[in-house]
Amino acid sequence: MVIMMINIRRIIIGIMGGGEILNQGDYEAARQLGALIAKEKWILLNGGRSSGIMEASARGAKENGGITIGILPGTDPDWASEYIDIPILTGIGIARNCINVLSSEVVIALPGSSGTISEIALALNIGKKVISLNFDLGFLFKRYEEQKQLIYAQHPEQVIELVKKFIRNRINKES
Amino acid sequence: MVIMMINIRRIIIGIMGGGEILNQGDYEAARQLGALIAKEKWILLNGGRSSGIMEASARGAKENGGITIGILPGTDPDWASEYIDIPILTGIGIARNCINVLSSEVVIALPGSSGTISEIALALNIGKKVISLNFDLGFLFKRYEEQKQLIYAQHPEQVIELVKKFIRNRINKES
Amino acid sequence: MVIMMINIRRIIIGIMGGGEILNQGDYEAARQLGALIAKEKWILLNGGRSSGIMEASARGAKENGGITIGILPGTDPDWASEYIDIPILTGIGIARNCINVLSSEVVIALPGSSGTISEIALALNIGKKVISLNFDLGFLFKRYEEQKQLIYAQHPEQVIELVKKFIRNRINKES
Amino acid sequence: MVIMMINIRRIIIGIMGGGEILNQGDYEAARQLGALIAKEKWILLNGGRSSGIMEASARGAKENGGITIGILPGTDPDWASEYIDIPILTGIGIARNCINVLSSEVVIALPGSSGTISEIALALNIGKKVISLNFDLGFLFKRYEEQKQLIYAQHPEQVIELVKKFIRNRINKES
Repeated sequence: MVIMMINIRRIIIGIMGGGEILNQGDYEAARQLGALIAKEKWILLNGGRSSGIMEASARGAKENGGITIGILPGTDPDWASEYIDIPILTGIGIARNCINVLSSEVVIALPGSSGTISEIALALNIGKKVISLNFDLGFLFKRYEEQKQLIYAQHPEQVIELVKKFIRNRINKES
Repeated sequence: MVIMMINIRRIIIGIMGGGEILNQGDYEAARQLGALIAKEKWILLNGGRSSGIMEASARGAKENGGITIGILPGTDPDWASEYIDIPILTGIGIARNCINVLSSEVVIALPGSSGTISEIALALNIGKKVISLNFDLGFLFKRYEEQKQLIYAQHPEQVIELVKKFIRNRINKES
Repeated sequence: MVIMMINIRRIIIGIMGGGEILNQGDYEAARQLGALIAKEKWILLNGGRSSGIMEASARGAKENGGITIGILPGTDPDWASEYIDIPILTGIGIARNCINVLSSEVVIALPGSSGTISEIALALNIGKKVISLNFDLGFLFKRYEEQKQLIYAQHPEQVIELVKKFIRNRINKES
Repeated sequence: MVIMMINIRRIIIGIMGGGEILNQGDYEAARQLGALIAKEKWILLNGGRSSGIMEASARGAKENGGITIGILPGTDPDWASEYIDIPILTGIGIARNCINVLSSEVVIALPGSSGTISEIALALNIGKKVISLNFDLGFLFKRYEEQKQLIYAQHPEQVIELVKKFIRNRINKES
């Protein structure tokens, strides 16, 4: 049963967000999002550290039997959150933000600061779909909003519906 | 004379901006900025490609006897603009944006799209001063504006004055 | 049962080796090694592509219910072998060789060419244990051999015994 | 005259070698090689640090009016040797070894340990010509020796003659 579950390539969903929690409710939203991703049998990918949105989302996934990958900037596995199953130690510092978004089928952004904004910008730059949950990006990415590459969601369940739609569209294009 | 000029470590100033020109006047502003940087005997660093702000700024520097470095995403030197003296071929793709900002003493941002925004966000994240010339970033980086890490300038001469001030402050701190 | 299995951080073992098979028997040795790694419930990590030692080792692991991670140089998931569960798309080209060895607790090297040798050298440089299976490296790394950081093994079972010993030593040091 | 000199893209020659000096005479050979590279008006590129072959080669170049680039693993300019004009701060750790060889037209290897061997292997892997000066690599790269991609030289002057030949061949191919 384990074998079957992982024999088909699993879908990897990236969650980006601050190392520090900026708004009340963000920690719980991230944790709930992690839980829903696990229930869909998707793999959760994030920046791997034991703080903020990273910890909350990985925690939610692990509490629901999910698999979690953490793409770490450094070379020390002890920097990974306890909720990360698979720490990838890149040793490339902040450049690992690029790997975060490249390896994710869809990128979900929760409130954060410059690190999170860099990941949103990089994701849009390489053509990834970005779903922003409770994180108002102003007019800076309007062009991507108009092209529906950047979409705003109001709650975790809506994020999941959007991800499902993106996956369906991709599969339809391939077949 | 040449030897003396380069015997003291030169100051490297990074110019970020779109591969495509978004607003009339940006090409000329970038070219003028490159010219002023060359006249200060600073080294100009950018993304190295032969388009948009990258080409314009390197061109302005070369027309005024400056030295230009291009940090390229790929492995082919022919991708470098003809105005680049020293093409650094990173082969790390978009992750080279991180090297752009890490290697620059100050980062100057001209109007651009997601690539430029990623560089602004990465620069602020690692603690670099960012001067935005004619590029309104909205409220997204307000926190850095308040701390005067992100500063807006109206024209190239003002950018140069700000860079000089930052360099003076750094030297004063060191001594 | 699935949940418990992955709740404890899994040990990641890296297998390096040529994209082309150089000697008869290497494909089978890699496949057998992948099988044994899966049976130990370790995660197999390699360069992810669908050729040579990479494919053989991932295949062996998948045929035995293992989990496989592929660290890919490019940005296209279709470059990953069908035996890879989790493709990490780095986009950093050959620099991904560094991530291969950084993310592995122990590095196992099978015969290969310059790519494999670079991974052995990088692994030794950052202090990882390297087990060479049927790959004679001559006198170039003698210093590491003398310090028992580089060890030669004759067959896959012996590799597994050595890995177990290294893990035991690490756990003993930590406690 | 300065302008003309740097208006034509300069040839970048990489020197790889140990951070610690392994054999008597290597420091002087590296310094002499740096001097000869400067006299040819080529740009010298190395790993940028203030030790071993890196320092010796950059020193030789600077003592003869050359330009030196250092590709540094970290983010702190103070790690650069005083003989480096242009420190490129990559922040990608040991993965910067890839940039060293990608950005060099020809790679010259002096005696070193695993770091230097990784650079030789990476250079050969991406198709660069490698000249080994007093560094016996055994049989490990025999295949590249036979194809004259890896060539042994006995003294710095011979290295320069080989580099000139490689550059002539490249220019002939292009025209």
